[in-house]
Amino acid sequence: MSRLHGNNELSIKEGESVSVTSQSVGGGWIEVQNSSGQTGLVPEDYLQVSTVCVCFCPSFSGFCSLMNLEPRTCSCSVSPAAEGGEDDDVEWDEDWDDYSGGSYHGDAHGDEEGGASGRNIHLGEVGPVWLYPLSALDCVVADPRKESKLYGLKSFIEYQVTPSTTNRPVNHRYKHFDWLYERLLEKFGSATPIPCLPDKQVTGRFEEEFIRMRMERLQAWMSRMCRHPVVSQSHVFQLFITYRDEREWKMGKRKAEKDELVGPMIFSLVDPEAPDLEPGEVELKCEQYSRFTKAMDDAVKDLQNVGHTHWKRCTGPLPKEYQRIGKALQNLSSVFNSSEYQGEATLTDALTFAGKTYEEIAQIVAEQPKKDLHFLLETNNEYKGLLGCFPDTIAVHKAAIDRVKEGERLVAGGKISSQEKNNMKQRISCMSYSLQAEMNHFHSNRIYDYNRVMQLYLQEQVNFYQQIAEKLSQALSQFTTL
Amino acid sequence: MSRLHGNNELSIKEGESVSVTSQSVGGGWIEVQNSSGQTGLVPEDYLQVSTVCVCFCPSFSGFCSLMNLEPRTCSCSVSPAAEGGEDDDVEWDEDWDDYSGGSYHGDAHGDEEGGASGRNIHLGEVGPVWLYPLSALDCVVADPRKESKLYGLKSFIEYQVTPSTTNRPVNHRYKHFDWLYERLLEKFGSATPIPCLPDKQVTGRFEEEFIRMRMERLQAWMSRMCRHPVVSQSHVFQLFITYRDEREWKMGKRKAEKDELVGPMIFSLVDPEAPDLEPGEVELKCEQYSRFTKAMDDAVKDLQNVGHTHWKRCTGPLPKEYQRIGKALQNLSSVFNSSEYQGEATLTDALTFAGKTYEEIAQIVAEQPKKDLHFLLETNNEYKGLLGCFPDTIAVHKAAIDRVKEGERLVAGGKISSQEKNNMKQRISCMSYSLQAEMNHFHSNRIYDYNRVMQLYLQEQVNFYQQIAEKLSQALSQFTTL
Repeated sequence: MSRLHGNNELSIKEGESVSVTSQSVGGGWIEVQNSSGQTGLVPEDYLQVSTVCVCFCPSFSGFCSLMNLEPRTCSCSVSPAAEGGEDDDVEWDEDWDDYSGGSYHGDAHGDEEGGASGRNIHLGEVGPVWLYPLSALDCVVADPRKESKLYGLKSFIEYQVTPSTTNRPVNHRYKHFDWLYERLLEKFGSATPIPCLPDKQVTGRFEEEFIRMRMERLQAWMSRMCRHPVVSQSHVFQLFITYRDEREWKMGKRKAEKDELVGPMIFSLVDPEAPDLEPGEVELKCEQYSRFTKAMDDAVKDLQNVGHTHWKRCTGPLPKEYQRIGKALQNLSSVFNSSEYQGEATLTDALTFAGKTYEEIAQIVAEQPKKDLHFLLETNNEYKGLLGCFPDTIAVHKAAIDRVKEGERLVAGGKISSQEKNNMKQRISCMSYSLQAEMNHFHSNRIYDYNRVMQLYLQEQVNFYQQIAEKLSQALSQFTTL
Repeated sequence: MSRLHGNNELSIKEGESVSVTSQSVGGGWIEVQNSSGQTGLVPEDYLQVSTVCVCFCPSFSGFCSLMNLEPRTCSCSVSPAAEGGEDDDVEWDEDWDDYSGGSYHGDAHGDEEGGASGRNIHLGEVGPVWLYPLSALDCVVADPRKESKLYGLKSFIEYQVTPSTTNRPVNHRYKHFDWLYERLLEKFGSATPIPCLPDKQVTGRFEEEFIRMRMERLQAWMSRMCRHPVVSQSHVFQLFITYRDEREWKMGKRKAEKDELVGPMIFSLVDPEAPDLEPGEVELKCEQYSRFTKAMDDAVKDLQNVGHTHWKRCTGPLPKEYQRIGKALQNLSSVFNSSEYQGEATLTDALTFAGKTYEEIAQIVAEQPKKDLHFLLETNNEYKGLLGCFPDTIAVHKAAIDRVKEGERLVAGGKISSQEKNNMKQRISCMSYSLQAEMNHFHSNRIYDYNRVMQLYLQEQVNFYQQIAEKLSQALSQFTTL
């Protein structure tokens, strides 16, 4: 429970985010502001430094200036030594139980992002990993419908989004997805790659193929967001997928747009149950990720280029050639037919059959990329988008590392205390745990996605070649055995 | 038996070719020269006009001038009413039995071309057809060896030619084949399409691939010649495939080069057992064949062009693309491998496997045309060559038709007798039967060849696609089932 006490003491609960509004006021107390805007004092030792990323005020200005933020917006994650209290969530929300029917409990106090408070990182086999919810969330984006407003003056496409949690569809236009993207980018972008939405497009927006393609990409984007344990449990994301009426949606939007727990603030929510990392280790990790994401970006772009070239060939010259082969065989057949020589009907029929078979193969070849290469390219495209987010994320980390390195000099020059420097180290450690968890999330998804898409691709390729072999086998059987 | 009698009477046998050396000498006798150069008289009514193409002297000059030949070289086929006497062949050759060990009995008297004398055309189901030998002749061209003469100053390739009749190999250089081609063209070219030999080539003559290719084409050419009942049984052809020593070869060559039964003379050997055709019918047939061969020539060239384009793609950009796909997958695998994320060995191994599979597919794709398209193109090429011979053959026929048409005018102007005009009609009828037999030979071969090559092509294509499907299926199985 975080409630304002009469004696200017602010009740806080484990995992709660608070903003440090003033330096230590003495006597072991520190002034903080909670997410409801209430200000009050909390015992300084409530803020467990060892394993929690805390924005202690002495180094606060340094951290925030690094991020180009006003110090007052910087939040802290609180992790009292006392365990338990997670069941209190229900009480915390009791004022807002008019929304209890849905899984979304968006409210003005909703700074405690689901799953992002408390210990949200643990050390798994592969290193720091996010705590994943027990049941995976997914959304189905389907059923695009052309809607209009202003008495038909304005037309738009509305997609149905149905989350697996409520199984209740909500309607969204592309611009709503775009709004969500902007919110997620602003809120999580410093820590988590938030891939771009499918491109905006002005012309051809109502063409069936465009709508189908956009929907498919919105689906992929939503599924990726759903898979992220921090993003998917955020209020704004939950609002998007579970709002129940226009009023709730609009209220939620306004609230989300005012959310101040955004950008690098998000690291304050990170709570790894692991020892601090040395800046050197952090730097090494950073460099390793930078190398990897750069290399993968190159590899993905390479595959993308090859794929696009192959696509063009498979839909352009190759089927044209099969068609020409088909026509040439049919032409030969019809010339043979004109010979007036008796008894060659079997040959001419077989030649015609073979010719038509090659025309069918032309069709199969031309349509194949949509069945396999498409998904490989789409997955690559998604990863190209994700990988494009890493340089910025890594830059934030590198800047923080530089800042910590500078810390030594600042201590020597008496600009900051040794404690402040240590706090900076702790924060960078938190950031690094966050990045590592994010990277491991990325790796595990990457393995899943590429395994899945390669299987799909190869299976479709097998079917493709088998189908052609069968067709040709049929054509072969039309000829007389000699 | 054709022997000179004491009374200046020449004994002739059924189907024997004789040259008419003078007009009727009166009393029902006509002076002829047999193939051994013996001159004598034969009863005029021995020469059955109704079903035999006979170069009666009255119209002889007309026929020969049409063909730009000296009248004295024009031969006649003799078809006495008396049956039997074919067994006499053995006796006929008794003077030359020093060669009896082989099937070739080339000699200075060898004008009676095997199978070309006597009734060599009969009316089959499809119309006039050549009389085919009971057992088909074939030759194997194999075992090319580099030989040299003039103490190694001159190098050449010798091929082994083994006919199915003797099963005894003879050696021939390309220039011998070329010599044979020239002889066959000169002798049979007016009536039978004699396809060109594979191109002469100055550079790279000793390169393995060139030799292999040339041998394959010489084989195809020999097989085609072997299949022709008239050509294959000619002395010159038999000499080529069955000569037993250098002396026999050189003697045979000299004899063949002096052969005067060449060019349009060959029609004199034609003996259809069918009623004369009206010039109108002959003209119609000519036009029909002209149309057909022109149309087939176009169709064959079309298929040839498509095939060449396809060949280039299959050996150029397509395997390069599969190779690039293979490289891109392996590249992705090696990047993934560098992630330092645990437990993705299955994926990276599978990706590498898939990448290598696509490299193998590149190889398979690049080598496939040699296994299937090659034979389709070679067959097409042979037919392009054959079809290229028809315009000349047809031109000879058309000129003869025009000549017959002119006959009416010449009769009216008293230039030729009505009998001479009729004889011209008979000759044109013979020519037409020859062309029809030739065309039917062509049709039956065409049906056989295209049936065979299409089956080979499709079977190889089936294998090709199945092989790729299997390879990809194997690659697929490397991935973890999700």
